[in-house]
Amino acid sequence: MAVGRQDRGGWPSWVTRTRRKRHTPIDQAPGTLVSHGEALATSVHTAAYTGETLRERQVSDVGDIETMLAEPGVLWVDLHGLRDVGVIERLGEAIGAHRLMLEDVVNVPQRPKVEDHDDHIFLTLIAMRLADGDGLKAGQVSLAMGANYVFTFHEEGGDCLDPVRARLRRETGRIRGAGPDYLMYALVDAVIDGYFPVLEHYGEQLEEMEAAIVHPTREGGRDTILRLHALRRDLLGMRRRFGPLRDAVGTMLRCESTLFEEETLAYINDMHDHITRASDLADSYSELSGDLMDFYLSMSSHRMNEVMKVLTIIATIFIPLSFIAAVFGMNFDGGASPWNMPELRWYWGYPAALGLMLALACGLILLFRKRGWL
Amino acid sequence: MAVGRQDRGGWPSWVTRTRRKRHTPIDQAPGTLVSHGEALATSVHTAAYTGETLRERQVSDVGDIETMLAEPGVLWVDLHGLRDVGVIERLGEAIGAHRLMLEDVVNVPQRPKVEDHDDHIFLTLIAMRLADGDGLKAGQVSLAMGANYVFTFHEEGGDCLDPVRARLRRETGRIRGAGPDYLMYALVDAVIDGYFPVLEHYGEQLEEMEAAIVHPTREGGRDTILRLHALRRDLLGMRRRFGPLRDAVGTMLRCESTLFEEETLAYINDMHDHITRASDLADSYSELSGDLMDFYLSMSSHRMNEVMKVLTIIATIFIPLSFIAAVFGMNFDGGASPWNMPELRWYWGYPAALGLMLALACGLILLFRKRGWL
Amino acid sequence: MAVGRQDRGGWPSWVTRTRRKRHTPIDQAPGTLVSHGEALATSVHTAAYTGETLRERQVSDVGDIETMLAEPGVLWVDLHGLRDVGVIERLGEAIGAHRLMLEDVVNVPQRPKVEDHDDHIFLTLIAMRLADGDGLKAGQVSLAMGANYVFTFHEEGGDCLDPVRARLRRETGRIRGAGPDYLMYALVDAVIDGYFPVLEHYGEQLEEMEAAIVHPTREGGRDTILRLHALRRDLLGMRRRFGPLRDAVGTMLRCESTLFEEETLAYINDMHDHITRASDLADSYSELSGDLMDFYLSMSSHRMNEVMKVLTIIATIFIPLSFIAAVFGMNFDGGASPWNMPELRWYWGYPAALGLMLALACGLILLFRKRGWL
Amino acid sequence: MAVGRQDRGGWPSWVTRTRRKRHTPIDQAPGTLVSHGEALATSVHTAAYTGETLRERQVSDVGDIETMLAEPGVLWVDLHGLRDVGVIERLGEAIGAHRLMLEDVVNVPQRPKVEDHDDHIFLTLIAMRLADGDGLKAGQVSLAMGANYVFTFHEEGGDCLDPVRARLRRETGRIRGAGPDYLMYALVDAVIDGYFPVLEHYGEQLEEMEAAIVHPTREGGRDTILRLHALRRDLLGMRRRFGPLRDAVGTMLRCESTLFEEETLAYINDMHDHITRASDLADSYSELSGDLMDFYLSMSSHRMNEVMKVLTIIATIFIPLSFIAAVFGMNFDGGASPWNMPELRWYWGYPAALGLMLALACGLILLFRKRGWL
Amino acid sequence: MAVGRQDRGGWPSWVTRTRRKRHTPIDQAPGTLVSHGEALATSVHTAAYTGETLRERQVSDVGDIETMLAEPGVLWVDLHGLRDVGVIERLGEAIGAHRLMLEDVVNVPQRPKVEDHDDHIFLTLIAMRLADGDGLKAGQVSLAMGANYVFTFHEEGGDCLDPVRARLRRETGRIRGAGPDYLMYALVDAVIDGYFPVLEHYGEQLEEMEAAIVHPTREGGRDTILRLHALRRDLLGMRRRFGPLRDAVGTMLRCESTLFEEETLAYINDMHDHITRASDLADSYSELSGDLMDFYLSMSSHRMNEVMKVLTIIATIFIPLSFIAAVFGMNFDGGASPWNMPELRWYWGYPAALGLMLALACGLILLFRKRGWL
Repeated sequence: MAVGRQDRGGWPSWVTRTRRKRHTPIDQAPGTLVSHGEALATSVHTAAYTGETLRERQVSDVGDIETMLAEPGVLWVDLHGLRDVGVIERLGEAIGAHRLMLEDVVNVPQRPKVEDHDDHIFLTLIAMRLADGDGLKAGQVSLAMGANYVFTFHEEGGDCLDPVRARLRRETGRIRGAGPDYLMYALVDAVIDGYFPVLEHYGEQLEEMEAAIVHPTREGGRDTILRLHALRRDLLGMRRRFGPLRDAVGTMLRCESTLFEEETLAYINDMHDHITRASDLADSYSELSGDLMDFYLSMSSHRMNEVMKVLTIIATIFIPLSFIAAVFGMNFDGGASPWNMPELRWYWGYPAALGLMLALACGLILLFRKRGWL
Repeated sequence: MAVGRQDRGGWPSWVTRTRRKRHTPIDQAPGTLVSHGEALATSVHTAAYTGETLRERQVSDVGDIETMLAEPGVLWVDLHGLRDVGVIERLGEAIGAHRLMLEDVVNVPQRPKVEDHDDHIFLTLIAMRLADGDGLKAGQVSLAMGANYVFTFHEEGGDCLDPVRARLRRETGRIRGAGPDYLMYALVDAVIDGYFPVLEHYGEQLEEMEAAIVHPTREGGRDTILRLHALRRDLLGMRRRFGPLRDAVGTMLRCESTLFEEETLAYINDMHDHITRASDLADSYSELSGDLMDFYLSMSSHRMNEVMKVLTIIATIFIPLSFIAAVFGMNFDGGASPWNMPELRWYWGYPAALGLMLALACGLILLFRKRGWL
Repeated sequence: MAVGRQDRGGWPSWVTRTRRKRHTPIDQAPGTLVSHGEALATSVHTAAYTGETLRERQVSDVGDIETMLAEPGVLWVDLHGLRDVGVIERLGEAIGAHRLMLEDVVNVPQRPKVEDHDDHIFLTLIAMRLADGDGLKAGQVSLAMGANYVFTFHEEGGDCLDPVRARLRRETGRIRGAGPDYLMYALVDAVIDGYFPVLEHYGEQLEEMEAAIVHPTREGGRDTILRLHALRRDLLGMRRRFGPLRDAVGTMLRCESTLFEEETLAYINDMHDHITRASDLADSYSELSGDLMDFYLSMSSHRMNEVMKVLTIIATIFIPLSFIAAVFGMNFDGGASPWNMPELRWYWGYPAALGLMLALACGLILLFRKRGWL
Repeated sequence: MAVGRQDRGGWPSWVTRTRRKRHTPIDQAPGTLVSHGEALATSVHTAAYTGETLRERQVSDVGDIETMLAEPGVLWVDLHGLRDVGVIERLGEAIGAHRLMLEDVVNVPQRPKVEDHDDHIFLTLIAMRLADGDGLKAGQVSLAMGANYVFTFHEEGGDCLDPVRARLRRETGRIRGAGPDYLMYALVDAVIDGYFPVLEHYGEQLEEMEAAIVHPTREGGRDTILRLHALRRDLLGMRRRFGPLRDAVGTMLRCESTLFEEETLAYINDMHDHITRASDLADSYSELSGDLMDFYLSMSSHRMNEVMKVLTIIATIFIPLSFIAAVFGMNFDGGASPWNMPELRWYWGYPAALGLMLALACGLILLFRKRGWL
Repeated sequence: MAVGRQDRGGWPSWVTRTRRKRHTPIDQAPGTLVSHGEALATSVHTAAYTGETLRERQVSDVGDIETMLAEPGVLWVDLHGLRDVGVIERLGEAIGAHRLMLEDVVNVPQRPKVEDHDDHIFLTLIAMRLADGDGLKAGQVSLAMGANYVFTFHEEGGDCLDPVRARLRRETGRIRGAGPDYLMYALVDAVIDGYFPVLEHYGEQLEEMEAAIVHPTREGGRDTILRLHALRRDLLGMRRRFGPLRDAVGTMLRCESTLFEEETLAYINDMHDHITRASDLADSYSELSGDLMDFYLSMSSHRMNEVMKVLTIIATIFIPLSFIAAVFGMNFDGGASPWNMPELRWYWGYPAALGLMLALACGLILLFRKRGWL
C-alpha cells in the first residue's frame, strides 16, 4: 500500500536505526580502520588555489598529496566513498591526524562534533538533501582543516559541497583570496544551508497535514496519523542532530585556535546563527507535529462524538416506539376476556396508537433539544 | 467557511512558515545582497536633531547622509522598504557595517539578536500589531546605532516607530536632549510596547474560549477546537520570538559598550523588564491554551458521557420490555396444545403482561439508580 | 448558575488578564506618571519611631515628609491609593528616586522584582488574601528603603501590613530598636506570610476535590472539572509570581548593599526560606491539580466503561432473544404448507421456544463471564 | 470501604497538606517560639562519651547540659517532643543559636536545609519509616552540631536514631573514637538509610500494580487507579523532599567549615551518594507511576474496545435478522389482494425465510472478518 | 502465557527493583563489609605484563598479589564473584583503598560514578549483554586503577572484559606497551561497547513494534501494549544509568590526576563520545517508545471508531425499518372499525409498505453520506 511504502521508504534510515552504524569489530583495538563492505569506492579530487590560480585534478596516488601540501596556496582534498581505508589512512598520516579521528571518518554516522587538535581542527556533521520522490538522503561529511589545507570525507552528502566548488572556480570571489579557514567555513555553511530546503519541505508537509485535519477527506484519517507520526519521528531525529552541531559550532567560535583569522570568525558567527535557526525550526516543527497529532485526535474525537450522538438519538427515539408497536402486536385472546387488549377493538384504537407514538417521538425530541443534545 | 478563512487568513505567516524567509541564493557568497521581488520600494526619511533644532527630510541621494553624519547632533535615518539593496549597501558603507549585517537587514525575518561591533551596535527584532479585522501584522525592524546616529530598516513594522517620531517633534521631551543611545532605546521600547495590545487581544480571545467551553453553544465545538489550535500555534510562535529578544536585550544590558551612557542603562533595564513581561505572558498564554484544550476535551467528554449514559439507559430499559412483548406476539397455536401460550387466553393475561413490563422497567430504573448510573 | 459565578467571580483578575494592567500611554515618554481613573484616592500615613518614641500621623502636605526625613529615627511612610500621582511624584523627589521606579509604583501590577539603587532599595511584590466568600484579593505592594526610611505604596494589599504596625506600637519589640532594613524585612515577610493561608485554602480545596473524585456525587462531575480548572489556573498564576519573587529576595540576599546590617541578613535568609516554601507549595499544588484532572478523567472513564459494559451486555443478551420471539411471531400460513412453521403447532412448541431462549441467555452470560466481561 | 480507608489513612499527611505546619502567629515577631498544643511532651536524653567512657542520662534540668558542655569528650543531647519551648529556648542559648533556627526546630515541617553558622552547623531533614499496617510515618529531625556537641530535636522521626545509639554503646566502634562531626554524619546517614526500606516498599507496590494491570481481576480496576494515584502523590511528595536534602548535603560537602575533619568528609561524600540514590529512585518511581497510569489506561481502553466490538457485532448481526422476522410478522391481509404477502402462503416460504436469515448472518460475519473486525 | 513470561522473565531485575540491592545492615558501621548469601564464589585471576612478557595465573593466596604489585610492569587483578569479602578486604588493604569504596564494590548495584583518590581512581559502572532467548543480563563492574595496577570486581558483567584479555594476549597490540591507564580505558570502553548491541536490539524491537502498529494482526493489540511498556521501562532504566556514567567519564576527563598520560586522555575523550552516543540513543529510544505508545493509541482509537461507526450506521438504518414492520404487525381489529389499520387490506398495501421501508433506508444512507459519516 502507498502509505506503507511512503513511511518506510522515503525517510532517512539514520533516524531510528543504529544497525547501519559501522563500527570497528569489538576485538580490534580502538583506532583500527576497517573497510565496510557496503561503502562506496574511494575517489580523491583535489583543488589547489591561490588568489590567481586554481588547479583541479583527480588524484590516484595519495603520495602526490604530500607534495601538494608542501606547495604554497590552499589545498582542498575531497574524498568521496569510504571503502579504501588505506587511502584514508595515508591522508591521515600526511597531516599527522590521530587514528581515532580517522576511525570517526570511516565509522559513520557519528554524533556531530568539533575537535581542536593544535595543528588541525576536525569536524563531523550530517548533510541532508531531498532526493526525487520526496525521499530524504542523509550522509556524514567530515572535515579536517590545517594551516594550508582542508580535507573533506563523505559518501552521500558530497553534492552539498558543489556550490562551493562553483564559487571557487569563479576568479573574483572572496573565497579565492582567503585562507583555508574561510574555505572550511564555506563548506560547512553549504552543508548547513542544505538543511533549510529540507526543513521547508517538512514545514509544508505540516501545513498540508493541518489543512487535511481541518478539512478531512473520507479515507484520509489513517493516512494522516501515519504521515504525522513519520514526520514527527524524522523531526525528532533532526533535532537530536542539530543541537550537538549548534553546540559544536559554538565551541569552534570560542576556541582560540590560531587557525582562524579574526575576519573569518564573523562569518562563523553568522553560520552559528544559521544552525541556531535550523535547530529552532526543528524544535518548533517537532512541537507543532505533536500539537497536530493532538489536534487530529481532538477533531476526530469531536467528529466521532457527533456521529455517535445523532445516530444514538435516532435509535433511542425508535426503540420506545417499537416497544409500543410490539405491545399492540401481542396475541392476547380478546375472546377469552374483555380485559385482553380491548384497545384493539376500539373504534379509534389504531389512530390513537399512532398518535401516542407520534406524541412520544415529539416529546423525546423536545427533551433532547432542551438538554442540548440535539 | 468562516472558520477556515479565519484560521488561515488572519494569522501572521511567519508563525509556521519558512517559505517567505528571503535568503541569498545558495551559489552566491555570503554577504551578497540580493533584491527580493516582493520587497517594498525603498524610501529614506531622516531626522537630524539637537536639543534646540530638528530637521526632517525625505532623502533621495544617499550621499547626503554621509554629509549629515559629519554634522553635530543626532541623526536618525529611517529606511522603509527593502527593495533597493544598493541604497542599503551605501548606507552600510557610510557607517562601516559588515556585509553580513546588511544581509540580515535584507533577508527577513531573522532571529531576534543584538551584535556589538565596537563602533556600532546592531539589533534585529520583530514588530507586531493588530490589523483591522483581527489580523496580525508582523515585520522585522533592524537598528544600527553608532556614536551619533541610529539607522532603522523595516517594511511592515515601521508604524510602531511613529510615536517616537511624535515625541521627537515635541521640543520639551527628554529624547531631544539625549544621545543616540536614548533614541535607540525609545525605538526598541516602542516596538516592545506594541506587543502588549497583541498579547491582550490573545488574552481576551482565551477568556472568550474559556467562557465558550463553560457555556457551549450547539454548533460551537468544532469552532472552539480550531480557534484554540490557531491561538496556541501563534502563541508558541511568539514565545519563540520573545525568548531570544529578552536574551538579546539582557546581553545589551551587560555589554560594556561605550556607546551607552550610564543614565540610558536604567531605561534599558526597564525595557528588559517589559520584554521579560511580554515573554512571561506569551509563556503563560501558551500554557493556558494547552490547558484550555484539555479543559475542552474534559468538558466535551463529560458531556458526551452524559448523553450516551442517559440514552443508553432508555434503550436498555425498553429492550427487555420489547422482548416480552415479542414473546406474547408469537403465533404458537393454542389449539394444538394446552401448553401453547395458555397465558394469551387467561382472563387477566393482558393486564398481567402489562404489569410485568411495568415492574421490570421500575426494577431496572431502581437498579440503575442504586448503582449511581442515573 | 453557582459554578459559573464562582469560577469567574471569586478569582483574582490578575491571574489571566492583562487588561487591568495600567500603563503609561504609548505617546508619552517613559517615566511619565499618569493618574488612572479607577485608582483609589491617595492617603498618606506616617510612623516615625526610635527605640523610645513612636509618632503616627496622617499627612496631608507632602512637604512635611521632607522635614520628617531630616529628623533622627526611622520613618515609615505608608501611601494607600494610587490616584494622586502628584503626591507619589513628590515623595519620589524627596528620596531622589528614578522616575521609572515611580512609574512601576503607579502602573500596577508589575513583575515582582528588587532594584538596588545605591542609596535606596526598591522592591515590588504582590500581596494576597482570602476575602469573604472564598474570593481572593490580590494587589501590588511597592517598597522603597533608604538610610532612615521605608516608603510603602499599595491599594488592595495594604491590610497585610497591619500586623507590622501592631508590633511597632508595642514598645518592647525588636522592631523598635532596629533600623529601616529590619522594618523592610518585617513588611515583606508579613506580605509573604499572607501567602500561606491562601495556599492552605487551595490545598484544602484540592483535598476536597480528591475526595469528590473518589466518592463522586450524582451531579458533581461538571462541577469538579470546572473547579479543578479554576484552581489550576490560579495556581499556575501564583507559581509565575512566586518564582520571580524568590529570585528577587535571593538577589537582595547577595547584593552587598550597605543598607543592610549583618544581623538583618539572617532574617532575610529566613524570609527567603519562606518564599521558597511558598513557591514549592505552588509548584506542588499545580502539579497535583494536573494529576487530579488526570485522576478524574481516569475515574470517570472507568465508571463510564462500567456503565457501558453492563448496559451493553443486557442489551446484547436480549437482542438475540427478541429475534427468536420475532421469528415465532411470523405469519407464515401453516395451512398452505406443512413446512410453514410447523413448530407453532407442536405440542411442546411454546415451552421449547421459551427453553431455547433461556438456554441462549444462560449461554451468553456464561460466555461473557468466561471472557471476564461480566 | 477498604480502598477509601487505605488511601486516606495510611499515607503521610505532610505529603499534600499544609495545615499541620505549625507556625508562629502572624502578629508575633519572627523568632518567637510558640508552644503548639498537639506537640508531644518534651524529654531530654544525653550521651556524653570519649573513646573510653560513655555516660547516658535522662536530664530534667537543662542547666546540667551547660555543665556537661564544658566537660571534655563529645555530648549528644537528644530532645524528644517539641511541646516545652522553654527547654528548647534554653538549649539554644547554651550554644548561642539564632532564634530563627530555634523557630525552625519548633515549627515543623521545614524544607530540608543546612545552615552554616560559624561555630555550629544546623540541619533539618525528614525521617520516614513504615508503620505497622502499611502506613508511613514521617517527622522532622533537626540537628545542631558544634565543636564538641550534637543536639537532635524530633517528635516522630526519633526511632531512626536508635541504631546509632546502639553503635555508640559498643565500645569498639569507630564512632566512639571520632568527633561530633562523625556523630552527626552517623545520625544523618541513619535517617537517610531509613528512606530505602520505604522506597523498596513503594517499588514493590508498583510491581504489584504492574502485575495487576497485566492480569486484572474482575473488581480490581477502581482499586488500581486509586492506589496508583496515592502512590504517585506520595512519590511526588518524596521527590520534593529528597531534592532539597541532596542539595543541602552537597552544600555541607563544599562548605569549608572547620568543624569537619578531612576524614569525615569522605563519609559525608558517601552519604551524598546515598541521598542522590534515594532521590534518583524517587524520581524513577514517580515517572514509573505515571507510566503505569498510562499503561493501565491503555490496557483498560484496549479491553473495553474488545468488549464493545464483539458485543456490537453480535447486536449488529441480529438487528437485520429481527427486521426480516418483523416483516414477515406483518398482518397484511392476503385475502384482500394477491400482492399482500404472498410469500406467507408459499410452499417453501418459511424455510426460505430462515435460509435468507442464515445467509444474511453468514454474509455479515464474513464481511466483518474480511475487514478485520472480528 | 508467553507475553506474561516474557515481560517478567527476560528483563533485568535492576530496572525497577531495589530489593536485590545488597546493603550493609543498618546497625553496622558504614564501611563494614558483609558477605551476601546469594553472591557468587570468589575467584581471582591475575595478568602481569610488560611490553615483552605476559604472565596469567589463578591466585588463591591474596598475599601473592602484594608481591606481584612490587614487581615492574602492569598488574591486572580480576576478581569474579563477591562472596568472599575477606579477599576483597585484603585486596583493598594492598592498595590502601578506603573502606567505603570496598563497600561500594560489595553492595551492588551502585550508581555509576568515578572517585579520584590521589593514588588511585575508583570507578563503578553497569555491564549489560543480551543472554540467549532475548533476556538481558546486567551486572556491576567496579574498577580501581593505581600507578601500576588495575583491579576489577564483578559478578555477572565479567564476560564483557574478555575481548580486552584477548587483545592483551596478542603481543603486538598497543595495550601491551601502554600503562595501567590505557588498560583501564580499554576495560571501561569494552563495557561501554557492550551497550550498543543491547541498544540495537531495543532499536530493532521498536521498529518491529512500529511495523506491528501500522499493520496490526488480529490478536496483536494486547501484546503490543505489553511489549511497548516493557521496552519503555527498560529504556528509562538505561537512561538513568547512562546519564550518570557519562557525567562520571566527563569528570574523569577533567580531573587532573597524574595517573593519566596525555596520550590516554585522547582515548578517554573518544570513550566519552561513545557513552554520550549510548546515552543519546537511550534518550531517543525512550522518547520513541512513548511516541509509539501514543501512535498505537491513535491507530487503535481510529480503527475502533471506524468499526463503531459502520456498525452503528447499520443498526441505525434497520431500527426505523423494524419499527415500521412492527406497526404493520399490530393486531388492531379491522372488523371493529374502518379506521383500524385499513392499509392492511389495501390492494397495494404490502408493496407500498416494502417501498416505504426501502425509501427510508435509501434516504438515511444518503443523509449519512452527505454528512460524511459513511
